[in-house]
Amino acid sequence: GARCPPPLSGPAAARGTARAGGSAPPPVPLWAGPGAARGSGAGCSYPQKNAEILSSQYGINLFLAGLLLTFAWAVHAVGISKSHLLSYLITLMLVQLLWMLWYLCRSCTQRRLIRDKDTHAGARWLKCGITLFAVITLILDSFKIGYYVDFSNCLSPTEGIFPVTHAAHTILQVYFLWCHAKDIIQSFKTLERFGVIHSVFTNLLLWTNGVLTESKHQLNEHKERLITLGFGNITIVLDDHAPQCNCTTTTLCSIFSQGIYYLYPFNIEYHILASTMLYVLWKNIGRKVEHHQQYKTPFKFHGITVGMIFGLIVLTSTIAIVVVYLIQIGRSKIKSELALTMFYLHAIFVLVLMCTAGVIALLIYRLDDRSLDNSKNPARKLDAELLVGTAAGSWLLSWGSILAIICAQAHPKYTWYNLPYSILVIIEKYIQNLFIIESIHREQEKVNDDIKTLRIVTVSQGSTLTLTPSYKEIYNGHAAQDAGELPCLFRGSICARERVVSSGDNEGTSQGDGSGIHFASEFSLCSRSSVADNKRRILKNIAAFLFLCNLSLWIPPAFGCRPEYDNGLEEIVFGFEPWIIVVNLAMPFSIFYRMHSAASLFEVNCKT
Amino acid sequence: GARCPPPLSGPAAARGTARAGGSAPPPVPLWAGPGAARGSGAGCSYPQKNAEILSSQYGINLFLAGLLLTFAWAVHAVGISKSHLLSYLITLMLVQLLWMLWYLCRSCTQRRLIRDKDTHAGARWLKCGITLFAVITLILDSFKIGYYVDFSNCLSPTEGIFPVTHAAHTILQVYFLWCHAKDIIQSFKTLERFGVIHSVFTNLLLWTNGVLTESKHQLNEHKERLITLGFGNITIVLDDHAPQCNCTTTTLCSIFSQGIYYLYPFNIEYHILASTMLYVLWKNIGRKVEHHQQYKTPFKFHGITVGMIFGLIVLTSTIAIVVVYLIQIGRSKIKSELALTMFYLHAIFVLVLMCTAGVIALLIYRLDDRSLDNSKNPARKLDAELLVGTAAGSWLLSWGSILAIICAQAHPKYTWYNLPYSILVIIEKYIQNLFIIESIHREQEKVNDDIKTLRIVTVSQGSTLTLTPSYKEIYNGHAAQDAGELPCLFRGSICARERVVSSGDNEGTSQGDGSGIHFASEFSLCSRSSVADNKRRILKNIAAFLFLCNLSLWIPPAFGCRPEYDNGLEEIVFGFEPWIIVVNLAMPFSIFYRMHSAASLFEVNCKT
Repeated sequence: GARCPPPLSGPAAARGTARAGGSAPPPVPLWAGPGAARGSGAGCSYPQKNAEILSSQYGINLFLAGLLLTFAWAVHAVGISKSHLLSYLITLMLVQLLWMLWYLCRSCTQRRLIRDKDTHAGARWLKCGITLFAVITLILDSFKIGYYVDFSNCLSPTEGIFPVTHAAHTILQVYFLWCHAKDIIQSFKTLERFGVIHSVFTNLLLWTNGVLTESKHQLNEHKERLITLGFGNITIVLDDHAPQCNCTTTTLCSIFSQGIYYLYPFNIEYHILASTMLYVLWKNIGRKVEHHQQYKTPFKFHGITVGMIFGLIVLTSTIAIVVVYLIQIGRSKIKSELALTMFYLHAIFVLVLMCTAGVIALLIYRLDDRSLDNSKNPARKLDAELLVGTAAGSWLLSWGSILAIICAQAHPKYTWYNLPYSILVIIEKYIQNLFIIESIHREQEKVNDDIKTLRIVTVSQGSTLTLTPSYKEIYNGHAAQDAGELPCLFRGSICARERVVSSGDNEGTSQGDGSGIHFASEFSLCSRSSVADNKRRILKNIAAFLFLCNLSLWIPPAFGCRPEYDNGLEEIVFGFEPWIIVVNLAMPFSIFYRMHSAASLFEVNCKT
Repeated sequence: GARCPPPLSGPAAARGTARAGGSAPPPVPLWAGPGAARGSGAGCSYPQKNAEILSSQYGINLFLAGLLLTFAWAVHAVGISKSHLLSYLITLMLVQLLWMLWYLCRSCTQRRLIRDKDTHAGARWLKCGITLFAVITLILDSFKIGYYVDFSNCLSPTEGIFPVTHAAHTILQVYFLWCHAKDIIQSFKTLERFGVIHSVFTNLLLWTNGVLTESKHQLNEHKERLITLGFGNITIVLDDHAPQCNCTTTTLCSIFSQGIYYLYPFNIEYHILASTMLYVLWKNIGRKVEHHQQYKTPFKFHGITVGMIFGLIVLTSTIAIVVVYLIQIGRSKIKSELALTMFYLHAIFVLVLMCTAGVIALLIYRLDDRSLDNSKNPARKLDAELLVGTAAGSWLLSWGSILAIICAQAHPKYTWYNLPYSILVIIEKYIQNLFIIESIHREQEKVNDDIKTLRIVTVSQGSTLTLTPSYKEIYNGHAAQDAGELPCLFRGSICARERVVSSGDNEGTSQGDGSGIHFASEFSLCSRSSVADNKRRILKNIAAFLFLCNLSLWIPPAFGCRPEYDNGLEEIVFGFEPWIIVVNLAMPFSIFYRMHSAASLFEVNCKT
């Protein structure tokens, strides 16, 4: 690829040649055959749009084939076993491993090829998050290996090979993402595109596989509860419950098989996160970026105490509720109803708080309208689309519940809590998406702090009377000390900087000696700055609170609270099988929504 | 909305006020409460991104609620009947009717508000297509009304109200799309956004409803065939087959009930087409467009005879095959097998031809590499995404077939034809998508004809020897006639135009008197022009051929050829119910793909 000439648009290039006096070879005629195309370097100037379509179609087919294998396994298709599916996944992972190794080697030897970086992609906290999940995934893999060793008599070898490959895949992939998530690949595009899209869909398939295993497990637990509660009229068949042979080391077996299901939610999040990061990498291939200065905005605990405290209260109470719920549900009819009532009341309370916080944040944004940044940014675009797209999963479930409550013939008392709960879930996500998407699109107040200090310096030189009392007390000593010795150079830079800040409006502030006209406006600007600070503090607290709330609300569905099953109402209205299909399709997106919105809110908190 | 000031970015506006001398009211402080926000005109400068998210989330919820109602009806949920679903759809249609009337009135009275038009959206042939489908939909509605009158004793009133509302909705919507599909709404955005997105999802729901009715019908026919063939072991229940009372006018009843199902495919296409056109309208709201000159490229039959002839042969043979298939299938085992074999062989033949044509077209593109136009164009972007997205539906089915053939224990001879057929379906769509997407992204040779004539004029002034014989004969008389009296002004405009054409390359052609340096290059340019013409003719023929092939391949699935059912192999491997779910989910997209790619190929044919 390196020897290829830069792509030239066809007719322009040809005209250039012609004008040079006919000394260059004439353009390839049609009858020269397809061989000529390759000879004339057509492979180099292959249009980018085509490479994109080529690779995305490859990825989609890879995914669909895997999806059907997964589906076939799920419906117990004749002649398709779990080992077929695992073999397919192992093959995909090995191909990705080889590609990542090739990429790492190549980018080491040819460092100069990748110079551009997308500063928005692969944020540090995202990398830290994925590393955390990856570590837990590695524990899961070791559990699976232990499980395989215990039951090796009756499990196929693929069940042992899979976790080993998966562990290697996880380690290399996390390393790859740490080093290359921000890359903007420009040089050897086609192989890159295929490799990256292969990785995206491999991770998506691993996610699907994890989701399915988890769903089967939840469904089995639900069926066991139904048996306990005495619903014998439903034909209940437990699915892939336990191997057909005895365990070799009895004590460890139960730890492994129980532990695996507590680790699965992290594994699922790991794969979907990796998949989104790789997708952004794919979208960035061949992109032209304008170089922005990047503003590092590290996370600070300072100033968000209120939000954190409320958020932590929600988090701990949610964990308590989940533990009680999982212990109580399915024990007896009364205990189940109590657990459900408790769950719904708690969720309603939290959702109302979240709605209020979201509305306040949106009102603050309306008070302080700022233009939105609409520049091209694949990472942000994906974030926004994922928020709305995955929220649709939980909206579907909520509409199902609402419909079931409206249409059900009998309404036990606890089912009524389901109605406000479902409506609030819809409203809360509606508001929260608005808040997050506006936040990530707002232009940052980049030089905010600079202005603030220099304003105070200028004010202290002029009339200190206009300062509000609180500011006066805090800054007066410092300002008075500076007032006398402020050098000319510094004052010049203040004005210059101000011009940079106000470059958005067209009024001429080009005169360097701004001290005269600035005098009258100091008061409103200073009070404005204090108001802006207040607003910012409130927004930061709201983002922190919502962040912890979303983390909290991730826990119940991820660890097996399924009021949509235990409630019973929807199953009666829609029927057992149809409702289970709906829940199993929508729930993974609903769970992912919570984790994804938490990640986005963390970003909002850093940016605000 | 008209009284609102133009949106100002917050800080810049505030700074402007401050600098003006403090005479303007100070910015609204936080403690002034939410009322102040409304007072300060915040509603006017509401960010566009937010309006987009607000409305899209509304639309998604509207759609999901309808989807669940449809689903509930499909699975015979307790307490939900068809009349509930129809009432919901009628309400949506009425709301859309009101909105469209409001919009039409408003745009009549305030003509100046909508000046910008998206020249790419709502092409004339698209409007003609939708009108054709709408007319057939109106026939369908009248059939439905007749059907309701016949069975009015046992049908709910909603079944009569629905077709009447639907007819009114169809007429107004087609009028609306004819007048306003190209609009770029700038003025009163929020209500527009909600109205348009409401229309998009109303049409999508009507599409879903049509698809479901059609699927149920196909499934019933399949079950009847299974009964005829003697598969009594499957529990077969016919679904919503016929009303529970007798018809009042016996002769018309069967015509109505039979006719409805032959008209449904057009109704389905109508709604999805309307939905895509409205979506483009929605994406265009608030957009800023650069004004391009539009080149009208009317469809011409001239020069595409070969493609048309081959295409028409495919079309007629396909219709013949469909008729034979529908008559033969399910009669007896042998007749079914013969029909399937015939169907597969024909499809394989057609698909091989299409693949070859696609590959040739792509090779021609590689010979004549031209830069792709990556400017913003919502209509084109949607086209490309729909092509790949809906192709995924049929790829899913194909992968299912491939998996079934690989895993099946018994292979009757005719099932083997399924394997090349499924593989070819995947490859053909892969290639065709590449071809279409590259075609619609290629920059048009806008001034192609201009250059051609002016080249010949210039050549005829110099040495006519370099002309190829064919050109010489055709143009010589005309050129010689012009040669003497070519005015200076005209020659100047030629050069100026050339400079516009070659503005892509950076070589200076700024000297106006180009006649000297052009001399040497005339030969290669003229022969090049003839080669380009050849290429263009081949491409036009290929597009015409593929257009007719896609129309042909739309017919079998739309009118009820379901080799995926009749084949039997997939049903055995995946199980009856799971495979039917897969087919019913994927088939609508697969059918839509054919119609959509035909539309795109028509456009390609016009553009090339």
